[in-house]
Amino acid sequence: MNISEQIKGLSGDITVATVCSHSSLQIFHGAKKEGFKTLGICKGKPPAYYDAFPLARPDEFFTVKEYTDLLKKSVVNELQKKNCIVVPHGSFVEYMKPENFEKLQLPTFGNRKVLAWESDRNKEREWLEYSGLKMPKEVKNPKDIKGPAIVKYHGAKGGRGFFIASDYNSYNENVRDEPHTIQEFIPGARFYFHYFYSPIKEDGYKLSKGSLEMLSIDRRVESNIDELYRWPDNTDIGFTVVGNVPLVLRESLLPKVFKMGKDVVEKSIKLFGGLTGPFCLECIIDKDLNIYCFEISARIVAGTNPFITGSPYADFIQPELSTGRRIAQELKLAMETGKLKEILS
Amino acid sequence: MNISEQIKGLSGDITVATVCSHSSLQIFHGAKKEGFKTLGICKGKPPAYYDAFPLARPDEFFTVKEYTDLLKKSVVNELQKKNCIVVPHGSFVEYMKPENFEKLQLPTFGNRKVLAWESDRNKEREWLEYSGLKMPKEVKNPKDIKGPAIVKYHGAKGGRGFFIASDYNSYNENVRDEPHTIQEFIPGARFYFHYFYSPIKEDGYKLSKGSLEMLSIDRRVESNIDELYRWPDNTDIGFTVVGNVPLVLRESLLPKVFKMGKDVVEKSIKLFGGLTGPFCLECIIDKDLNIYCFEISARIVAGTNPFITGSPYADFIQPELSTGRRIAQELKLAMETGKLKEILS
Amino acid sequence: MNISEQIKGLSGDITVATVCSHSSLQIFHGAKKEGFKTLGICKGKPPAYYDAFPLARPDEFFTVKEYTDLLKKSVVNELQKKNCIVVPHGSFVEYMKPENFEKLQLPTFGNRKVLAWESDRNKEREWLEYSGLKMPKEVKNPKDIKGPAIVKYHGAKGGRGFFIASDYNSYNENVRDEPHTIQEFIPGARFYFHYFYSPIKEDGYKLSKGSLEMLSIDRRVESNIDELYRWPDNTDIGFTVVGNVPLVLRESLLPKVFKMGKDVVEKSIKLFGGLTGPFCLECIIDKDLNIYCFEISARIVAGTNPFITGSPYADFIQPELSTGRRIAQELKLAMETGKLKEILS
Repeated sequence: MNISEQIKGLSGDITVATVCSHSSLQIFHGAKKEGFKTLGICKGKPPAYYDAFPLARPDEFFTVKEYTDLLKKSVVNELQKKNCIVVPHGSFVEYMKPENFEKLQLPTFGNRKVLAWESDRNKEREWLEYSGLKMPKEVKNPKDIKGPAIVKYHGAKGGRGFFIASDYNSYNENVRDEPHTIQEFIPGARFYFHYFYSPIKEDGYKLSKGSLEMLSIDRRVESNIDELYRWPDNTDIGFTVVGNVPLVLRESLLPKVFKMGKDVVEKSIKLFGGLTGPFCLECIIDKDLNIYCFEISARIVAGTNPFITGSPYADFIQPELSTGRRIAQELKLAMETGKLKEILS
Repeated sequence: MNISEQIKGLSGDITVATVCSHSSLQIFHGAKKEGFKTLGICKGKPPAYYDAFPLARPDEFFTVKEYTDLLKKSVVNELQKKNCIVVPHGSFVEYMKPENFEKLQLPTFGNRKVLAWESDRNKEREWLEYSGLKMPKEVKNPKDIKGPAIVKYHGAKGGRGFFIASDYNSYNENVRDEPHTIQEFIPGARFYFHYFYSPIKEDGYKLSKGSLEMLSIDRRVESNIDELYRWPDNTDIGFTVVGNVPLVLRESLLPKVFKMGKDVVEKSIKLFGGLTGPFCLECIIDKDLNIYCFEISARIVAGTNPFITGSPYADFIQPELSTGRRIAQELKLAMETGKLKEILS
Repeated sequence: MNISEQIKGLSGDITVATVCSHSSLQIFHGAKKEGFKTLGICKGKPPAYYDAFPLARPDEFFTVKEYTDLLKKSVVNELQKKNCIVVPHGSFVEYMKPENFEKLQLPTFGNRKVLAWESDRNKEREWLEYSGLKMPKEVKNPKDIKGPAIVKYHGAKGGRGFFIASDYNSYNENVRDEPHTIQEFIPGARFYFHYFYSPIKEDGYKLSKGSLEMLSIDRRVESNIDELYRWPDNTDIGFTVVGNVPLVLRESLLPKVFKMGKDVVEKSIKLFGGLTGPFCLECIIDKDLNIYCFEISARIVAGTNPFITGSPYADFIQPELSTGRRIAQELKLAMETGKLKEILS
């Protein structure tokens, strides 16, 4: 069965499946709350830490030797029999690699066409700038680095190896032979906005089709850059993501932030049929209240993890709403209204 | 009808009204929870972002061309007919300007006499020092700037344009021709304490009249000063408030912090009949646990926005209590006990 | 009656007692929620700030002149009559001094043998390294300080007086004549992991005996080091703990963090019969995702205070679970199963 046949065949007893990492506790917790069965995909033994979190422990574990085993027919067949819908997250895609994830023969929440636009930083920029978002300028030729610029490797969402170069020399000394992009460094405060776009829910903040929500905001904690002020001997800086803190935004900026989310979704509909479900615009707000978007994540981000039983934004929508739970509600709504094919791919 | 006649006339079906910004989501959410009708005042079209937050969306919008239209008789009459009580916040006052807000002919939560004491930094200092609070020293003559000093413009609560000067020269280079104050810079950690003073609720932490609560604590996020450590090339620093993070205080400091709140209220009663409702003491705690108060905000602050369904302090008072909801409860209590005139002005 | 006789004698109507500071609001709030009577021990007058927090106010206050009065027979007798179980916290131990706290003739939650291993930084290191934890290297001879190193006084959990030395000279200039330890300074992000070890609860993340939970994570706010980037004129740095912010961890690190907790408990069982109840591993995660533990606190830490009605981790265990409440539940479980002697000392 191909994916669209599988989607048609999905009936009552759905299992929500994801890889045990990243935001999986939240995804399972939300799915269980909405009455779904849950399945945790893991490499080797099921991770014991789930035993400590009974409300998030999946009903079942599914062990693979390599994550790419998920491409094998036999494995796919097994998961199909369990009526699985796969919920992707950053580690899931990273562990399988985007090009493999795209080929996964299982019904997957969201539109996987977004992968091509997101994992290549040039196409990502095309999309976001076409949406009218302000972005940090790209420095195409490293010889043109004049002020502080941040060097980012393609696909490396974890931030490992990123560095700040102040000129061509410091660029040359640090750069690795990997595809990367160079952005001007914007002095400001980072905000990671967690949106949810539903093509099938009509009420709310309306788009040309469906509606947009904002569920929460976080700031990433990066090691060691975010505590380097404690010992400003900055010879070996890293940008490795290690955690998240909750954050709220000055309310008068909300109209702009909603418009940004709307424009990104509307353009995605034109470019590739539309981004579906949770996504994150990763932004810096400068002292003049300009909002620069330096990256998009087109699925649930780990920055939603502080908000398991609500957030200062989700609390205005519904009590005890996490992004993981919102995903489960979207699946439910789609099943009830016969629209699964609009939110799966 | 003048305001005190209006207050007398307020009956069953009250509408809580505020300007759509700052902490309005919270104010409406709290008012709705307590059963009030709600009205959002906006310039131009109702802001669409409310559509995304059904539990905070006001029942009705009221459009003005300019916020100062609220001073017009016809507008006042219309709002009077709706049985409106106005809940002020920082942006509301800023958009109308304090001198205009004072003249608003609608029943307003809190004592608007506080405005004169709060919007002038000299009178503010008089009040706080008279209350026994430790404040950063004022530098009256810029020639006396010897260590780091922060230059703040009167009324500019948003922090735009503030700068740090280390001597007379750097002061001269940066200062604008506007009323301002110069404070010594205290090295320490910022804490913004969110109090609620009720002149009519008797149980709790007692004052000479009524009682005092502490509902939450936040730390403001200012751009770009609060992330400048990521690129310490500090030539163009800003103090623009862009958001808030939640915070708790070392418990052994609570007695001192409550005493500070108490003393400020008691003196306010003597000076101008008393501060009513929510207020915020904006403080720095140094390494020797001295608490310096550098500012007071005499109404709900946006720093309460992280706490929509409770805070580590409100949770000890009542489940799911926000400052917005506390305001609505105060209105309810006053209506039930015939004491509206004690909390409105 | 000695303590084990007292424990045997404890019946239905238990009173949870602690000193009014540190995390006492949380401890009382949790105990009340689980139906216990509560008693607040205070020096001098009961602190008025409890009046502001009705859900955390102890049923009764017990005034002492000096905290060491708790060693007096008459005082012990009085508290025994009230069927008291003492819940220790950092300030409780600090106010009485560890050597006195050890002698307290009242049933105490947790194993007080841990004190000897925790209050001496050398034994602490022995325990943690024996558990396989990575620690910042100790610099035994100050002449060997080559890079940044942090100087910490024994027992001083509050962080007062700590300083960073970059060489022998700067060490010599700043050091006080007190027992202290010197650790290499690890550049990274701080995470304070709040575990709960139950020797009597069998389900969950299993240990050789009982089970382990993780209830929350915080980051301490230290004055003035944590805001010194706002004015990097670092001549008078302090590490005084003034508050806490909530934090979540990158999920893929959870297996390692649980293993660390497990290993520390298992070794404690071998070394001194086992750590019981809440404890905290205070860690730094560097840019290569190495986790260094620089300290252990063997009881409830104030870093749990942001989480009165749940945390992003406790929410996966049970709704509205704080560490204070978890302690009360442990007491309840032990009473119901006749195992009080396994969790008291």
